[in-house]
Amino acid sequence: MEHEGYELGMIGLGTMGRNLLLNMADHGHSVVGYDRDTDKVKALRQEGKGRAIAGAQDLAEFIAKLRKPRAVMLLVPAGAPVDAVIREIAPRLDAGDLIMDAGNSFYVDTDRRHADLGAKGIAFLGVGISGGEFGARHGPSIMPGGSPEAYARVRPLLESVAARVNNAPCVTYLGPGSAGHFVKMVHNGIEYGVMQIIAESYDLLGRGVGLRNDALHATYTRWNQGALESYLMKITSRIFAQRDARGGGDLIDQIRDVAGQKGTGMWTSQQAMQLGVPVPCIDMAVVQRNLAGAKTLRDQALDRLKVRRATFEGDRDDCVTQVRNAVYAATILTYTQGMALLFEASEAMGYQLKLEAISAIWRGGCIIRARLLEDIRDAYRTRPHLPNLLLYQPIADTVMNLRTDLAEAVALAARLAIPAPALMAALAYLDSYASERLPTNLIQAQRDFFGSHTYERVDTSGSFHTDWPRG
Amino acid sequence: MEHEGYELGMIGLGTMGRNLLLNMADHGHSVVGYDRDTDKVKALRQEGKGRAIAGAQDLAEFIAKLRKPRAVMLLVPAGAPVDAVIREIAPRLDAGDLIMDAGNSFYVDTDRRHADLGAKGIAFLGVGISGGEFGARHGPSIMPGGSPEAYARVRPLLESVAARVNNAPCVTYLGPGSAGHFVKMVHNGIEYGVMQIIAESYDLLGRGVGLRNDALHATYTRWNQGALESYLMKITSRIFAQRDARGGGDLIDQIRDVAGQKGTGMWTSQQAMQLGVPVPCIDMAVVQRNLAGAKTLRDQALDRLKVRRATFEGDRDDCVTQVRNAVYAATILTYTQGMALLFEASEAMGYQLKLEAISAIWRGGCIIRARLLEDIRDAYRTRPHLPNLLLYQPIADTVMNLRTDLAEAVALAARLAIPAPALMAALAYLDSYASERLPTNLIQAQRDFFGSHTYERVDTSGSFHTDWPRG
Repeated sequence: MEHEGYELGMIGLGTMGRNLLLNMADHGHSVVGYDRDTDKVKALRQEGKGRAIAGAQDLAEFIAKLRKPRAVMLLVPAGAPVDAVIREIAPRLDAGDLIMDAGNSFYVDTDRRHADLGAKGIAFLGVGISGGEFGARHGPSIMPGGSPEAYARVRPLLESVAARVNNAPCVTYLGPGSAGHFVKMVHNGIEYGVMQIIAESYDLLGRGVGLRNDALHATYTRWNQGALESYLMKITSRIFAQRDARGGGDLIDQIRDVAGQKGTGMWTSQQAMQLGVPVPCIDMAVVQRNLAGAKTLRDQALDRLKVRRATFEGDRDDCVTQVRNAVYAATILTYTQGMALLFEASEAMGYQLKLEAISAIWRGGCIIRARLLEDIRDAYRTRPHLPNLLLYQPIADTVMNLRTDLAEAVALAARLAIPAPALMAALAYLDSYASERLPTNLIQAQRDFFGSHTYERVDTSGSFHTDWPRG
Repeated sequence: MEHEGYELGMIGLGTMGRNLLLNMADHGHSVVGYDRDTDKVKALRQEGKGRAIAGAQDLAEFIAKLRKPRAVMLLVPAGAPVDAVIREIAPRLDAGDLIMDAGNSFYVDTDRRHADLGAKGIAFLGVGISGGEFGARHGPSIMPGGSPEAYARVRPLLESVAARVNNAPCVTYLGPGSAGHFVKMVHNGIEYGVMQIIAESYDLLGRGVGLRNDALHATYTRWNQGALESYLMKITSRIFAQRDARGGGDLIDQIRDVAGQKGTGMWTSQQAMQLGVPVPCIDMAVVQRNLAGAKTLRDQALDRLKVRRATFEGDRDDCVTQVRNAVYAATILTYTQGMALLFEASEAMGYQLKLEAISAIWRGGCIIRARLLEDIRDAYRTRPHLPNLLLYQPIADTVMNLRTDLAEAVALAARLAIPAPALMAALAYLDSYASERLPTNLIQAQRDFFGSHTYERVDTSGSFHTDWPRG
């Protein structure tokens, strides 16, 4: 086996790298792994006993073990570490070899690396991978971008390890250059948004309405059995049933209300703004992580702000149904915003994204897999060049039928002083598109007043300016 | 007069440049202007007859006319044009000369230019200017940053042309490097937020509740006579009284509901996210401008989304009072977010900003001047190192007393299907800080479930991981 050389080499044997390697070996691929941390190499060798998995002590051994033309995958932290590894291995590679960056790299860096390596004749694929540890091990969703020829080389490998839905692998060639990493970035943005929406429902039903953990568990379990079925809904229901091994009681109550982030949600927000695409649910999800994270400031503010919290007085079951519908509507709107961003980015960056294919490969393996993606796929199958899912009547109808409950949930959150920024942003987004007029005429009038920026008129074309009365 | 050389040279004779130059001449300074557009130079000469204002035909004449050590101000569009001008004039300048970029430059570019010119011995000030055309002409708010020595050279000039409040000029040295342009950027972010909030009140009271333009004019006039007094409130009241010269009727109704933007609001959002500071009202203001601007998409979506609009049934006067209080609360919260961003940026960038001084110079000349800034100034005078205005009891009390009306306005907007993203973001921001617990524990549990990202506990320190049940 070792005489031919290994089919793929993995640099980076953390959670994702190690698990993906084991997945590849399970599917009959011969793989070799390397990490600066020799303990991780040892651990790989242990787990890989009896299979075509090798560990390399150093980069020279690693490169020497690879079958030519070589294929190397990187799963190291995004940013400087990726550049450092590329700097180390590129001189040891030959023209025609391939590097795949499978980490959460920022797509602009991917474009740069693609060009730099291309100048050396080395192929480069920017590959987004979603599914966490379990997905990496048993079947992730894979989002590759780069040259079609480079993809063709590794297509059988990637298809063999990807998740499968209706026997179709959750991987497809997405487009040139950084298309894969851009799509992965937006995937993560949607993930932030949906997680925030679910969290707001927990706050509203829990702290606001008074449902306890067992009732929340039952609620999320029930929600996961219908149109809201999704991986995130499933794990949420599991979380509320988890006992605390350390102290008894429910684990969720022992977890501190701060959350980390790796930055991909922020990138999605920033890039969307750059492209002029509104993604307010994603924006508010990032904002809330930042707000929650500054715990000291929160504690100090809490001392100053004594809120008179109203008590919920209504039918609890009706309320839960209302909140369910609100969550469903806001979730659809979050995917809508993400897909609209992909549409615009595809035009701006020349990715030529197939939104139907993206919806399809997100149905399995990845964190945002959900029954809803079948409906989204239908929309793009019917209308491949749809700029926004709200322009597809079945989705527009679904959302508008849920609108009243979303509005009521927003009103309830306001009355109970439960912060619901993502639910509120979803409602405002929908109501903006459903409005024949927005008050932006006033903003343009103000801009002309103080800055002579001019305005357009409704009755004729051109730019106009008024000499507003001053003093 | 010409024998000594001119005190300052202005490159860029658009609205801001020309008006600022005339302002300077009014205050006894000798100034020379240059623009590639010779018509603008001619216009300047016309307006400047009889005063110490000259126009230059080309850069050589321009530079030759300047008194040494030379002081040059740029008021050209941000970005490449600034670099182009600097590239042209730097070779003609000597060490010890000074360039002031008074445009809306991105602060990262200012740092770069500061370093590049510093290497040549040329001093550089990044100067934010607010007040629009009228402010430039009669007294803007000026936000300079760079070396204290460079500022000392032009301090008398800038103080003479700045707006004055209680006889104090609305200009002060803000800090090193790009401090001035960063502060100007945040000023613009707050401006976006407040404009969006006022626009939402127009939509809610107009389209939602049924107030017509004359009633809106009366309402904004009344609101401008109390704690809500501000430049933006004043011009809003004027706008609703403006007749349409072209066709009769009210001008506001003839203005198209799309608004342009120069990017500074977006920068504020993006930089705040980068620094981890929540500024949701500013974020939503930028989002709405982007959403409103894509008019074709809006028209197409409108066809698909048939909203059943509820009618307002309540006491109109009570409602107007409620909305007034909502606007006031949301406005305070928008300034709060902007000032919190300045606090964090000061720490991160080493600006050593004096938030009391910034509040003071914003009281006159600039677009966001408002009575509220006196209260904000008091807060920072009492507590100079306040990370967030909500930690200052008088402001916390004011906002909490308005909270119910903000919540009711949000609920009303939701019921009437009037999009109110900034009012909603303000409420969520406030309620987040007023919450003893946020649902971020669920988010961290989910992150640990799918990515083994670990969580913190409430009862003990450290990072923890759970082996969640799968399958």
